[in-house]
Amino acid sequence: MPTALNLPMVDPLPPETQKYFDICTEKLGMIPNVLKAYAFDIDKLNAFTAMYNDLMLADSNLSKLEREMIAVVVSSINRCFYCLVAHGAAVRQLSGDPKLGEMLVMNYRVAPLGDRQRAMLDFAAKMTIASAEIEEPDRQRLRDVGFSDRDIWDIANVAGFFNMTNRVASATAMQPNDEYHAQSR
Amino acid sequence: MPTALNLPMVDPLPPETQKYFDICTEKLGMIPNVLKAYAFDIDKLNAFTAMYNDLMLADSNLSKLEREMIAVVVSSINRCFYCLVAHGAAVRQLSGDPKLGEMLVMNYRVAPLGDRQRAMLDFAAKMTIASAEIEEPDRQRLRDVGFSDRDIWDIANVAGFFNMTNRVASATAMQPNDEYHAQSR
Amino acid sequence: MPTALNLPMVDPLPPETQKYFDICTEKLGMIPNVLKAYAFDIDKLNAFTAMYNDLMLADSNLSKLEREMIAVVVSSINRCFYCLVAHGAAVRQLSGDPKLGEMLVMNYRVAPLGDRQRAMLDFAAKMTIASAEIEEPDRQRLRDVGFSDRDIWDIANVAGFFNMTNRVASATAMQPNDEYHAQSR
Amino acid sequence: MPTALNLPMVDPLPPETQKYFDICTEKLGMIPNVLKAYAFDIDKLNAFTAMYNDLMLADSNLSKLEREMIAVVVSSINRCFYCLVAHGAAVRQLSGDPKLGEMLVMNYRVAPLGDRQRAMLDFAAKMTIASAEIEEPDRQRLRDVGFSDRDIWDIANVAGFFNMTNRVASATAMQPNDEYHAQSR
Amino acid sequence: MPTALNLPMVDPLPPETQKYFDICTEKLGMIPNVLKAYAFDIDKLNAFTAMYNDLMLADSNLSKLEREMIAVVVSSINRCFYCLVAHGAAVRQLSGDPKLGEMLVMNYRVAPLGDRQRAMLDFAAKMTIASAEIEEPDRQRLRDVGFSDRDIWDIANVAGFFNMTNRVASATAMQPNDEYHAQSR
Amino acid sequence: MPTALNLPMVDPLPPETQKYFDICTEKLGMIPNVLKAYAFDIDKLNAFTAMYNDLMLADSNLSKLEREMIAVVVSSINRCFYCLVAHGAAVRQLSGDPKLGEMLVMNYRVAPLGDRQRAMLDFAAKMTIASAEIEEPDRQRLRDVGFSDRDIWDIANVAGFFNMTNRVASATAMQPNDEYHAQSR
Repeated sequence: MPTALNLPMVDPLPPETQKYFDICTEKLGMIPNVLKAYAFDIDKLNAFTAMYNDLMLADSNLSKLEREMIAVVVSSINRCFYCLVAHGAAVRQLSGDPKLGEMLVMNYRVAPLGDRQRAMLDFAAKMTIASAEIEEPDRQRLRDVGFSDRDIWDIANVAGFFNMTNRVASATAMQPNDEYHAQSR
Repeated sequence: MPTALNLPMVDPLPPETQKYFDICTEKLGMIPNVLKAYAFDIDKLNAFTAMYNDLMLADSNLSKLEREMIAVVVSSINRCFYCLVAHGAAVRQLSGDPKLGEMLVMNYRVAPLGDRQRAMLDFAAKMTIASAEIEEPDRQRLRDVGFSDRDIWDIANVAGFFNMTNRVASATAMQPNDEYHAQSR
Repeated sequence: MPTALNLPMVDPLPPETQKYFDICTEKLGMIPNVLKAYAFDIDKLNAFTAMYNDLMLADSNLSKLEREMIAVVVSSINRCFYCLVAHGAAVRQLSGDPKLGEMLVMNYRVAPLGDRQRAMLDFAAKMTIASAEIEEPDRQRLRDVGFSDRDIWDIANVAGFFNMTNRVASATAMQPNDEYHAQSR
Repeated sequence: MPTALNLPMVDPLPPETQKYFDICTEKLGMIPNVLKAYAFDIDKLNAFTAMYNDLMLADSNLSKLEREMIAVVVSSINRCFYCLVAHGAAVRQLSGDPKLGEMLVMNYRVAPLGDRQRAMLDFAAKMTIASAEIEEPDRQRLRDVGFSDRDIWDIANVAGFFNMTNRVASATAMQPNDEYHAQSR
Repeated sequence: MPTALNLPMVDPLPPETQKYFDICTEKLGMIPNVLKAYAFDIDKLNAFTAMYNDLMLADSNLSKLEREMIAVVVSSINRCFYCLVAHGAAVRQLSGDPKLGEMLVMNYRVAPLGDRQRAMLDFAAKMTIASAEIEEPDRQRLRDVGFSDRDIWDIANVAGFFNMTNRVASATAMQPNDEYHAQSR
Repeated sequence: MPTALNLPMVDPLPPETQKYFDICTEKLGMIPNVLKAYAFDIDKLNAFTAMYNDLMLADSNLSKLEREMIAVVVSSINRCFYCLVAHGAAVRQLSGDPKLGEMLVMNYRVAPLGDRQRAMLDFAAKMTIASAEIEEPDRQRLRDVGFSDRDIWDIANVAGFFNMTNRVASATAMQPNDEYHAQSR
């Protein structure tokens, strides 16, 4: 079981889901456990993957690496084992910089970032720790380093999303695939 | 604008979206501002509504009221104005008990709940405040008051979802529709 | 019983107290439960009402609404059900703006306030959360928006008072009168 | 000035106030600065002293020492210099145990207390740190070590009172009289 | 420079220090940057290494792995980049279990530990977060899983030591040697 | 026993240790309990005293009083009874200002310090509360009031050291010698 809950995958999977999982195996060498966890209910799986793919893979002025950086910083604050392992690997891979991945997992303030990325991660961190205290000057700080209102939306939604998945993963004791640990070290 | 970001709705809306908004107007007397906020990008709107509708309206052993109760308790901890207004109104309406809505907005511990609902809300609160500290005894406490593993999944995902939307709403200064304030008092 | 403690009111009440309670019934349509709670000991009741009336009703450069705004913001941080219900109603009534009452109950940072009132509420909030960190620059910020030293005293004492009553109310499970919930919505 | 605010005492003081201050000088060797601070407005001074004297000096099953112990523990958590100095001295004097005074100022958990006093101070500490989380089992724990409902009221009101005065003292930079420091060492 | 402070090593190093550094290079393949950081003053370096070697390498009922586990859990709570990198590598190496190292870096509660090691790490975590709240029942819990008073001393001193070094490393921006990142993955 | 752990001193003490203790008795009028606590293992005692003496007594641009001030502020935040008693006495003695000692024990923000000492204590406080958030501007603030990089090292190491000893003392219930309480009042 990918979580501590006894919720077996639909068996057999619908053809479209099976096809999606086959693509995962082919491209990633594994089916991420989060997908197996949701696969007890195909509607829930589809809602999750639709939102995930829109946020992390669709067009955005934020690079895929930047979105993964947000994912890791949020997950670091929430201490989510699943997401730190999976998205820490993604940062190492997309950046080609294993040390950057470690820095974001451990304490993003030690990473040598430019103003743009630092402001982006500070905003994501504040959203995670004290979202009720975000006010116009916080948004303005993002605009001041070059982010558009659309970019702010994307930062907020990626940071929001991992505040959801971190909590779902921790609440269900979701286990990351072992393959992640040695990737891109 | 429904938020502090300058992100106008797609104009004209695609026919399916327009139809969905018309149904909102008919049934709710308004188009919730969260939908207008996402409507600058129809894929994002659709991903949001698909997840929202699955979590809050699809079949579950949790009643619709219980799911709204979780929404309010999470939003109370995160002090999210938008979600407290919108989902506080939903609790008042679904329960027929305005005082219950106020209690959950202000401090759910004062509400006279049975063991089942109290355990459910305590779990949602812990997920919100300290998700990294959730362990097997927390899940077992839910099983002990009668929740199945599927129910635990639903509790975790509703609580997770509002930890996302609370943060998106606060990060973007999303404004709730004025109609909510006087509803079901 | 107005609280979880078994402390019945003095019976019969002394004539002056009975007269005071009759005035409450006439003017407010109820005797606030906090008064009934203290009425097991008339000296304690009198000490409480003397301080309350001096702070909330006596001459001050702070308007009665402003004093109630402080009451609600302090009570929101302390999540005191009794005081949020009673003083939230007072803000709605005195301001004629139900939405303002809700904003202060939920998260005062979303309320569209002028600099003066915002500074006043920030000071009350800091007093509530981290009074030991208040230093001269905090007082100066109040002076800079036009408050006199006497005004600062009044802000500090109103904020202090609700930090007392919030805790007494929560410690004794004091129940607000049901009449408040629907008032001035 | 006894605080950072420029609020001179009424001059001359009304005869009753002057008499009260003379008694202070005679009995305590000083006029406590908190009284001088309030003496810019005799109504406020009288409201304060009436509540103070009722709580700290009137009949109660809590000894005067126990009430001072609560004062110090609350003030320690709030790190209020004025109240720690003044009431720390009172604990040293009333107990004849300077070390007890130091323990309560620094960390009450190290003091060798019986179950009754430990429960009393734990309740006062929880009221100070997280009053919204107090529920019936907290009150029951006090009853289990022998406190009556009236005693619980007194504990709650003394703890509440110092949560007020700590904040007023810190907000106004109230200075304790130098005489306290060397008393009862 | 191994830190953000301009404090060059004594040059030349005294023969004993040079010999010690040569042994590091031979055994570890590097001179840990923490040693270079202290080497601007040989007395300080010697005091540090004497305490480090006594705590981490001298006889103890705690295995070297267990001492490193404490180091990582403390450093995780304090989010110390230097110590997480260096001692995370040590846990991976001594345990032969890279996943265990990652779990302790990210959230030790997800690691599948026996009662003894879990109690040990819970004690170290409480010392790190809220040492003032440690009382006899905390020590008794360690005795109950088999630790002697001497073992408790060792746990307390290892946990204490990394609360020192974490803070020194963060305060000086100490950089871990790059060699650690890929070790024992 | 100087702590709650049953760890008797080596008996007889080695001659050098006995001599060191005799000097303590002669100079201080007592053997500080922390030394007795470590004396169950002479290597551990020596490592501790070597580091302590280097930090607190060796050459530094920080005066001995300043180092003791840091000790007290760190211990105040950590609420360590042992260290507050012992080092509070040291501040009173070295400064000749009993009130300063009390201020640092209770809330260092109320002490009338110059910019240099205030910056030094703010840095020590931040190291204690949130070391992971220290960045270059924090160090620069120290340089701006005249501290050299070597001075910053000393501030960091003294503050770090008491974050260790506070935790060891609290974890073992270390008792300060009674002699401290009345010293230099």
